[in-house]
Amino acid sequence: MLDGLILSIDAMGGDHAPDVVIKGIEYFLKHEGKNRRARFLLHGDEAQLTELLSKYKLTAARSEIRHTDKAVAMDAKPSQALRKGKGSSMWNAIAAVKAKEANFAISAGNTGALMAMSKLQLRMKQGVQRPAIAASWPQKEGWCVVLDVGANIECDAAQLTEFAVLGEAFYRALHKKAKPSVGLLNVGTEELKGNAVIKAAHERLAESQLGLNYQGYVEGNDISFGGVDVVVTDGFTGNIALKTAEGTAKLIGHFFSDALSGNLWSKFTTMLNSYALLKLKKRIDPRRANGGVFLGLNGIVVKSHGGTDHIGFANALGVAIGLAESTFLEEIDRTLEALHDEDDNIGFIS
Amino acid sequence: MLDGLILSIDAMGGDHAPDVVIKGIEYFLKHEGKNRRARFLLHGDEAQLTELLSKYKLTAARSEIRHTDKAVAMDAKPSQALRKGKGSSMWNAIAAVKAKEANFAISAGNTGALMAMSKLQLRMKQGVQRPAIAASWPQKEGWCVVLDVGANIECDAAQLTEFAVLGEAFYRALHKKAKPSVGLLNVGTEELKGNAVIKAAHERLAESQLGLNYQGYVEGNDISFGGVDVVVTDGFTGNIALKTAEGTAKLIGHFFSDALSGNLWSKFTTMLNSYALLKLKKRIDPRRANGGVFLGLNGIVVKSHGGTDHIGFANALGVAIGLAESTFLEEIDRTLEALHDEDDNIGFIS
Repeated sequence: MLDGLILSIDAMGGDHAPDVVIKGIEYFLKHEGKNRRARFLLHGDEAQLTELLSKYKLTAARSEIRHTDKAVAMDAKPSQALRKGKGSSMWNAIAAVKAKEANFAISAGNTGALMAMSKLQLRMKQGVQRPAIAASWPQKEGWCVVLDVGANIECDAAQLTEFAVLGEAFYRALHKKAKPSVGLLNVGTEELKGNAVIKAAHERLAESQLGLNYQGYVEGNDISFGGVDVVVTDGFTGNIALKTAEGTAKLIGHFFSDALSGNLWSKFTTMLNSYALLKLKKRIDPRRANGGVFLGLNGIVVKSHGGTDHIGFANALGVAIGLAESTFLEEIDRTLEALHDEDDNIGFIS
Repeated sequence: MLDGLILSIDAMGGDHAPDVVIKGIEYFLKHEGKNRRARFLLHGDEAQLTELLSKYKLTAARSEIRHTDKAVAMDAKPSQALRKGKGSSMWNAIAAVKAKEANFAISAGNTGALMAMSKLQLRMKQGVQRPAIAASWPQKEGWCVVLDVGANIECDAAQLTEFAVLGEAFYRALHKKAKPSVGLLNVGTEELKGNAVIKAAHERLAESQLGLNYQGYVEGNDISFGGVDVVVTDGFTGNIALKTAEGTAKLIGHFFSDALSGNLWSKFTTMLNSYALLKLKKRIDPRRANGGVFLGLNGIVVKSHGGTDHIGFANALGVAIGLAESTFLEEIDRTLEALHDEDDNIGFIS
């Protein structure tokens, strides 16, 4: 499976790069990635990376440094990053995927720049208008995939339909579920709610013969608690929903620590109860959900949160590897083709 | 304070009305509203309400039933509710506020119908374009108010600016904070992000001389964890953010029960730890945040979740009473006037 995979890493991307990136790889190799023979191309400053690798032996044994002294600033505009960022660690991480030297690229850097560079280098799959970013969120049982979570501020109905197809194929490949359910995020489940774009996308999805398990409108609470597998929305709404969910989980984590360390008795009983509480804490840890996947490109690019720590980065690595091991790209090719055939017949995308 | 307040209740609104409504009033009178002499006008079916009141003595002693056999369906369109809903329990609950028989109206019924009827009967405050719904969400310390959470699917920059002014006055009155901070919900804190409407509202708020404590853009996670007091957004985004936060809290509550009742040892230590855990459970209970307030009207109308239970309804009552006891309506008059003076000078609202 993983043996033989080559992971192209933007070692300079993120608020705490390169330290968190390398520490994240080490953590992954010690835990989820134990006994695996994946190798890493580390794009970034050779001096800094060499020094770090002297501390992280597992990573050092599997990595090759590709030196560049250029890095994309976290606050650079995408257009600026494209103009000035050629040869940067981010650019080179993607270039290795394009050159088929690596199975995928991963970066915790500037999202807009990463998307712009990925589009320019890898190109979109035939017929795709705009790529989307898909993120995972835990549910009672399993996971929910939400897309788009930030690539497209405004979307039309054709794009939302395309996101449904991309997200469904993604879910099927990653979570090995034959018929994942798909919902369209709206402010209410009654037919009368929502704006014109959402209504048009709803009609299109409801009438489609693509064989999607389309459930109609879903609401914000369904992301965590609705049993729907794929939630489709524009990048503005999706980004806000995901960050709101993260903030809520973080807040509750804070209340949690607070309540359980209140007085000596609380501390004592918490200690006795520590196994169950630790399991719970792990389950609600937002870092588990780190790793946004760019869908619609010829190649796999994964975006880690810029501000995450090594455990979050290791989780993003896990997502990327799950995808690289799946039939994801082939699935998407197949379903996109069916969508665009249907579009041609009904003249939906003009 | 509360003594002498008269609360106008749509007893037939909500998924589980009238039972949950009456049980909610009783719960309120037993707990938060203990020792208070508030009275209730219960609008709804006399036979059903009389039977219920025979079980809930505290409520019975303080209530007057105003019979109507008409109720607005939970799935009625607002236009349909306006046409056919005159004389319904919802309509009459608002009419009592208009007639100054009650300090405010509260309903767990159909949101769109409640807003349409409130606008028609109470009218908007002078110069207000559209009312907004404000909801509260817990933070590490205190509360965050988010608006709009569902009244206006699409908003322009002038409306968002008005929401900032309404929300700030609301927060000041309800939470007794002299200078609450105000943020504009966006997908990123960098200047370059967001759509044209949000950018225009941001410029307007940043340049305003109204004396708002405007903090600029905030993100979804700031609702729970950012320390910002008032979060301004359009009704589509706000509704999805709030419901996503609720879903997340509910999911974690589920994980919580799950983890702590796993095996005998867990059950035993959880019992020992029950005080701290109960305190935590209470703190993350989404029912605590129930109660959306309509801002911008000549009168106070509070919307409870349609699907809430009696504890959630009691919380919505608490919010409404907090407002009725505050200088909320006067505050809003004062700040709206200042906003509209400024608008006249810069020609912002045409």
